[in-house]
Amino acid sequence: MKKGDATRTTILDRATTLARTVGLEGLTIGQLATALELSKSGLFAHFGSKEALQIAVIEHARDRFVSEVIAPALKVSRGTPRLRALVDRWMKWGEDACVFVQLSAELDDRPGPARDAVAATIRDWMDALATAAKIAVDEGHLRADTDPKQLAFELYGVMLAYHTVGRLLGDPKGAARARRAIDALLARAA
Amino acid sequence: MKKGDATRTTILDRATTLARTVGLEGLTIGQLATALELSKSGLFAHFGSKEALQIAVIEHARDRFVSEVIAPALKVSRGTPRLRALVDRWMKWGEDACVFVQLSAELDDRPGPARDAVAATIRDWMDALATAAKIAVDEGHLRADTDPKQLAFELYGVMLAYHTVGRLLGDPKGAARARRAIDALLARAA
Repeated sequence: MKKGDATRTTILDRATTLARTVGLEGLTIGQLATALELSKSGLFAHFGSKEALQIAVIEHARDRFVSEVIAPALKVSRGTPRLRALVDRWMKWGEDACVFVQLSAELDDRPGPARDAVAATIRDWMDALATAAKIAVDEGHLRADTDPKQLAFELYGVMLAYHTVGRLLGDPKGAARARRAIDALLARAA
Repeated sequence: MKKGDATRTTILDRATTLARTVGLEGLTIGQLATALELSKSGLFAHFGSKEALQIAVIEHARDRFVSEVIAPALKVSRGTPRLRALVDRWMKWGEDACVFVQLSAELDDRPGPARDAVAATIRDWMDALATAAKIAVDEGHLRADTDPKQLAFELYGVMLAYHTVGRLLGDPKGAARARRAIDALLARAA
């Protein structure tokens, strides 16, 4: 990794954390500069505009999701083991908080490039989940009448409930409930 | 309804709509005054502070949820029919958008009275769902080993996925997927 990349990663990690409390729309280059003790003009030179910073934050989160959740699971053997690996890593990803859950809710009523970038990321992820489910059907691990997209939709719902129950309601049982729900979904399809 | 109440309802309906795009934190009394063509001082007199306005918006949404979703379903006969009525009305409520989904994501990292009010509303709602499921167990409509709180959690997840898939991804199949998922959950418990 080049020095410039490391700086960019540091900046975007901090921007993601900041966006958690102030929202993506509330995130300003000035505020980020203060938080990082960098010059505002330097950050402007880096990102050019607030909108470019927003897109960079989303792409940074997407890249992290791909490398922490998707890439390692693709090394697991095809079928239910890989689907399980995806779901397990997804749960781990959302343990603290999932930036995409926040961004979905914040941006769903705000048309523009940021909303499009979040929607594309979530669409890609649901496609990846459905593909893994389809492979599990092809491998004979899941029943032939399983609808992979429906299963992806239902798994997604469990994760969203896990996020809300854990983050907002502070219910420590959220993870156990999510695991039970996932087990039931996969058992029903097996 | 007194005239003052009608005005308050109009103001809070508009505030809820505004909060959808700017967030609850982005909602200001000045902006709301402009949108409603009312004086800023008059609105201040009404709510006293931005925080009081936020709480009023949340309580207004909660009251609407109770009268549109919960109250009518309580008139339906006990057991699965009532549980179904709750879920059907919940889907109708979320058809356009659910303000609580947005508020959950916006506030989960912002401790304070607004966050507490949203969390209390969602907790009450999940308790109401679990109670309806428990009654369905007691009436012999659902299996004795059904965990009412787990079922409420799983139904909640379906609704969250429905919301995201419909609102953010604009997938017209969201409602059909949600209905299938709900049917499968209730069939599994029956």
